[in-house]
Amino acid sequence: MGYTAAVAGASGYAGGELLRILLAHPSIEIGTLTAGGNAGSRLGEHQPHLLPLADRVLAETTADALAGHDIVFLALPHGQSGPIAEQLGENVLVVDCGADFRLTDPAAWEQFYGSPHAGTWPYGLPELPGAREALTGTRRVAVPGCHVTAATLAMFPGLAAGLVHPEAVVVAVTGTSGAGKAPKPHLLGSEVMGSAAPYGVGGGHRHNPEIVQNLSGAAGEPVTVNFTPVLAPMPRGILTTCSAPIRSGITTEQVRDAYQRRISDEPFVRLLPEGTWPTTAMTLGANATLLQVTVDEAAGRLVAIAALDNLTKGTAGGAVQSANIALGLSETAGLPVAGVAP
Amino acid sequence: MGYTAAVAGASGYAGGELLRILLAHPSIEIGTLTAGGNAGSRLGEHQPHLLPLADRVLAETTADALAGHDIVFLALPHGQSGPIAEQLGENVLVVDCGADFRLTDPAAWEQFYGSPHAGTWPYGLPELPGAREALTGTRRVAVPGCHVTAATLAMFPGLAAGLVHPEAVVVAVTGTSGAGKAPKPHLLGSEVMGSAAPYGVGGGHRHNPEIVQNLSGAAGEPVTVNFTPVLAPMPRGILTTCSAPIRSGITTEQVRDAYQRRISDEPFVRLLPEGTWPTTAMTLGANATLLQVTVDEAAGRLVAIAALDNLTKGTAGGAVQSANIALGLSETAGLPVAGVAP
Amino acid sequence: MGYTAAVAGASGYAGGELLRILLAHPSIEIGTLTAGGNAGSRLGEHQPHLLPLADRVLAETTADALAGHDIVFLALPHGQSGPIAEQLGENVLVVDCGADFRLTDPAAWEQFYGSPHAGTWPYGLPELPGAREALTGTRRVAVPGCHVTAATLAMFPGLAAGLVHPEAVVVAVTGTSGAGKAPKPHLLGSEVMGSAAPYGVGGGHRHNPEIVQNLSGAAGEPVTVNFTPVLAPMPRGILTTCSAPIRSGITTEQVRDAYQRRISDEPFVRLLPEGTWPTTAMTLGANATLLQVTVDEAAGRLVAIAALDNLTKGTAGGAVQSANIALGLSETAGLPVAGVAP
Amino acid sequence: MGYTAAVAGASGYAGGELLRILLAHPSIEIGTLTAGGNAGSRLGEHQPHLLPLADRVLAETTADALAGHDIVFLALPHGQSGPIAEQLGENVLVVDCGADFRLTDPAAWEQFYGSPHAGTWPYGLPELPGAREALTGTRRVAVPGCHVTAATLAMFPGLAAGLVHPEAVVVAVTGTSGAGKAPKPHLLGSEVMGSAAPYGVGGGHRHNPEIVQNLSGAAGEPVTVNFTPVLAPMPRGILTTCSAPIRSGITTEQVRDAYQRRISDEPFVRLLPEGTWPTTAMTLGANATLLQVTVDEAAGRLVAIAALDNLTKGTAGGAVQSANIALGLSETAGLPVAGVAP
Repeated sequence: MGYTAAVAGASGYAGGELLRILLAHPSIEIGTLTAGGNAGSRLGEHQPHLLPLADRVLAETTADALAGHDIVFLALPHGQSGPIAEQLGENVLVVDCGADFRLTDPAAWEQFYGSPHAGTWPYGLPELPGAREALTGTRRVAVPGCHVTAATLAMFPGLAAGLVHPEAVVVAVTGTSGAGKAPKPHLLGSEVMGSAAPYGVGGGHRHNPEIVQNLSGAAGEPVTVNFTPVLAPMPRGILTTCSAPIRSGITTEQVRDAYQRRISDEPFVRLLPEGTWPTTAMTLGANATLLQVTVDEAAGRLVAIAALDNLTKGTAGGAVQSANIALGLSETAGLPVAGVAP
Repeated sequence: MGYTAAVAGASGYAGGELLRILLAHPSIEIGTLTAGGNAGSRLGEHQPHLLPLADRVLAETTADALAGHDIVFLALPHGQSGPIAEQLGENVLVVDCGADFRLTDPAAWEQFYGSPHAGTWPYGLPELPGAREALTGTRRVAVPGCHVTAATLAMFPGLAAGLVHPEAVVVAVTGTSGAGKAPKPHLLGSEVMGSAAPYGVGGGHRHNPEIVQNLSGAAGEPVTVNFTPVLAPMPRGILTTCSAPIRSGITTEQVRDAYQRRISDEPFVRLLPEGTWPTTAMTLGANATLLQVTVDEAAGRLVAIAALDNLTKGTAGGAVQSANIALGLSETAGLPVAGVAP
Repeated sequence: MGYTAAVAGASGYAGGELLRILLAHPSIEIGTLTAGGNAGSRLGEHQPHLLPLADRVLAETTADALAGHDIVFLALPHGQSGPIAEQLGENVLVVDCGADFRLTDPAAWEQFYGSPHAGTWPYGLPELPGAREALTGTRRVAVPGCHVTAATLAMFPGLAAGLVHPEAVVVAVTGTSGAGKAPKPHLLGSEVMGSAAPYGVGGGHRHNPEIVQNLSGAAGEPVTVNFTPVLAPMPRGILTTCSAPIRSGITTEQVRDAYQRRISDEPFVRLLPEGTWPTTAMTLGANATLLQVTVDEAAGRLVAIAALDNLTKGTAGGAVQSANIALGLSETAGLPVAGVAP
Repeated sequence: MGYTAAVAGASGYAGGELLRILLAHPSIEIGTLTAGGNAGSRLGEHQPHLLPLADRVLAETTADALAGHDIVFLALPHGQSGPIAEQLGENVLVVDCGADFRLTDPAAWEQFYGSPHAGTWPYGLPELPGAREALTGTRRVAVPGCHVTAATLAMFPGLAAGLVHPEAVVVAVTGTSGAGKAPKPHLLGSEVMGSAAPYGVGGGHRHNPEIVQNLSGAAGEPVTVNFTPVLAPMPRGILTTCSAPIRSGITTEQVRDAYQRRISDEPFVRLLPEGTWPTTAMTLGANATLLQVTVDEAAGRLVAIAALDNLTKGTAGGAVQSANIALGLSETAGLPVAGVAP
């Protein structure tokens, strides 16, 4: 084995996916599991699909309970990671699946989250330029938001190569698990089945400033992002349609070349063969992002579409990928790349 | 009663929805039902939900079978309406749910449909400026495409009022019934459940030139439209997210006012209260289009979202609405405005 | 019009379906709408699909608010109808969609509901022998449980005709709306999509004694009922598979004849043509129950399957059907018999 | 590695699931992939979720193409395995996911499949008494039908222990992938979403005689089985509700003890804690069967419910489990036991 990992927030969706992945990880052993309101109960009551862990009892989420492990994965509500992380030793690898340490601009944090900014950690999207260097050897990782991973991987190659003007439009169809397990009326099965429902329209979604941050970084200039998420009747999956005005004379072939160059060595990102468009079903349970790009010549726009599983590559898989890099393990260790379909 | 109606293509999804609506219509009696490959069989084998018509036997789709009615609704594959319509008398009201007579530009027709252009009929979207005048008393109606109805109703008020630059981006999440009843592997339940799947990306969808035609007409100048439909796991419903660069200084309040002015007298279009976004579930089985608009100030774009039922307001309901106008009946006769939810 | 109706519990699923039906009823006008926790808010916030009623404000559920109408429909949590009904005048038609007045046996009520028995009202399943007589002119109606309507209509003809031994096995696949709108973790979309989940297994479901009551009444002897409901990923619909040991020598043809005799005059029950099995999709939004029967000769059992919409024929449609009878209106007034499909 | 495996029928659902499992198997290397009509195309066109195999080209399904491997998995339409198997060497381990070699009674085969009986192979349900012995070292395995695995595992412990009379009633809610990938109208997403649909009612389903065979074998006497499958709107999963008349005086505790004794050493079968009922979501993608049992005292029946994934434990996972035994590998090698949820 070599490493032990605690998981905070083990009864939620992100926590459950972390555990599913860690169960198959060759170098990480699952240690203490913690929860908030569910502390004291068996994991099997909350995650009955994780049979081998059914009898594990959830401890309360405290720094004491999490101490003594090589790695601590935090899958907590936004704002709760900061106080816990402060109490964990500097040599512990802390991987935060929440938003607390993602943004570099304190003003953006305060505008969208309404609380003081906790700081900025190395960013867990290894596919971004410079990210692997920052992750190697780090003991703190901020895992990106699920929508952010999809939109960033779809658009940054085009922006980094200067193919488009810095004005992106992003519409993301998403499954319901991204909204978490706390029961709310609009998330009831009766409400979501048969319905497509937009939310956070017009710039209000908390993932918006994070997409702006990533794309502006890749472009080397400020990028505007008009982002609309749409809830769809499926448990998992994000299908993100991005577009931006293409620079004069750029062809689909040139776009494909630029994307291919950027991602050809990436183990978890694929540009599909021409004519095949990604779907969320292709990625269920896999740490994979599938891409396709084209130029709409009549409208003068580059269109880039990404599909991923919001809980795997969008959260827990991405977290383990970054942890692998931080620890010097093989980046692909323990990460499934084939999806579950149909 | 007063009028009799034949329905061609009665075993398909559009045909079935026409019949569901006509069963409750106070002034139209259902006459002959026809089909292609299903001719000779009982309607109950194909539309078991239409209990009162279960024992009707389907005739073959010919002009002879359809003759002798006041109204003929055509719900046929694209390209088949033209030859039939030619043989129907000039005094018969022919309402075509197919694409054959929608486009005004023969070149656009030939580019997207690959066959000679059959002509152009009065356009069955009464909410467009001048449309009711053209429909009143007509004996030929071209019903718009379902995606076209949604995108047009979402964007034309903003374009007509000069609020935005003529460059629209449209991403439409759609249920599966729009793809029809002919069995294809990618439409299997096993494939569509749990998946969001884009198609016709980059300008290739046949509804694209029709959206361009409507929006350019409303704007009084050429409008570009980058259109991406995304298949989602639901039988019915279209949720269309549209955006365009907003002209300098325009506020959300001004946008709401402009939309409200345009649609305040419309019986089948509603601008929802501020803060409420339309969902497809709100419109199931109803001849209704629900709208919401806002300005994304950081991105400088107007965002307008429309929801409708692709088979009702998007096809069969819109067809009956236009037929009502053509015949001088109340425009709302027989049309449900409350949806079926949850 | 003639009659006015108040609806208590208008923000819930049963209340919403009552309103959808009443909107199209030719002789009933919608009066006061009340709610519990949602009192004071607009109906449009809770039932956005009911566009014509969007601006109605919900009153608090009190006898005073409900007074002054010809009819009061109660769609309240179990146990709340009794106290309200006591305060409503004897001349008001009170139609209770809850369980309070369904059971004749106080001991059964107390065993399954754990509170004192409120009494027994005329039973709103007109298809049962003697039921229409009891309903005619009554001012109190107890609407059956949704599972009960399906299981009773599937099995009582066979029991009444003495075709089977009085030992029924009932497995009912049901949509999620029957569980109501109060948010609970196991009803989240993320949990129900992709899952079939049994509940109340082994005799514990509250509809169990009511099925026993109906079937025993029809058989003229005690009938045992082993009932298992299974939650399936659909918003509406119940598909109930019933079976019982067939008496020696009875053939499928004899069974079909017995069923056909029993229901041939029923406006809302159909025995499908031989070889066609009912599905829930055939009944969406319709006040219809579809049946099919056969004999499994190798296993020696009659199999009877019923499909209905739990909110329509299973609750709100059945309620209006009984109200029609009570008031001396046409039994079918205002009731849709064609479903919404696909 | 050690072993190589060819997969015939690699473009179908069972074939795809075999490949997903084999990709993670520590001792089996994936060799030739074959198909029927899809021969000559890339696997990625049919199984886009299997990224590591996307560029594999499908050979035609012939004995020559399959030769030269240690193992051949056959995932072919019923009736096609026999002729192929005959041409494969006696030392090749042939694992047939089809029905051809499951039944011991030629008359039952001919009645349900309408063709001459090909023979009987060792039966790939290791949990049945004596099955592991028959599988050890064999070079031919007949994998059970998916419904059969669920019904057998739910009921055989009760029958083997003499707890019930030999008259089982089985109602199985099933996802759509069991019906395969050949497009048929009733399997369209538009048809299956929102619908529960019974099929093969009354003893006609081909899995019926196989359930009878297994349960009669376990009981030591003929068992009748009234079997009703119900298609539900989910891609995968079977939830099987079984019941039978309980022998006088048997309690739930005795039943739990009998089941627990029978399966306590089984790696892939779990009796859940009392009060928890299995759901299909708990088993998605896992080689697991979850059980719960109770006694309905009022109705005098034992109720046993099983959940599994029809493509994993129900087909491909069961196939690999049996192959592991046949080859002398660890029975659990390469088999996931944690599911993918939500």
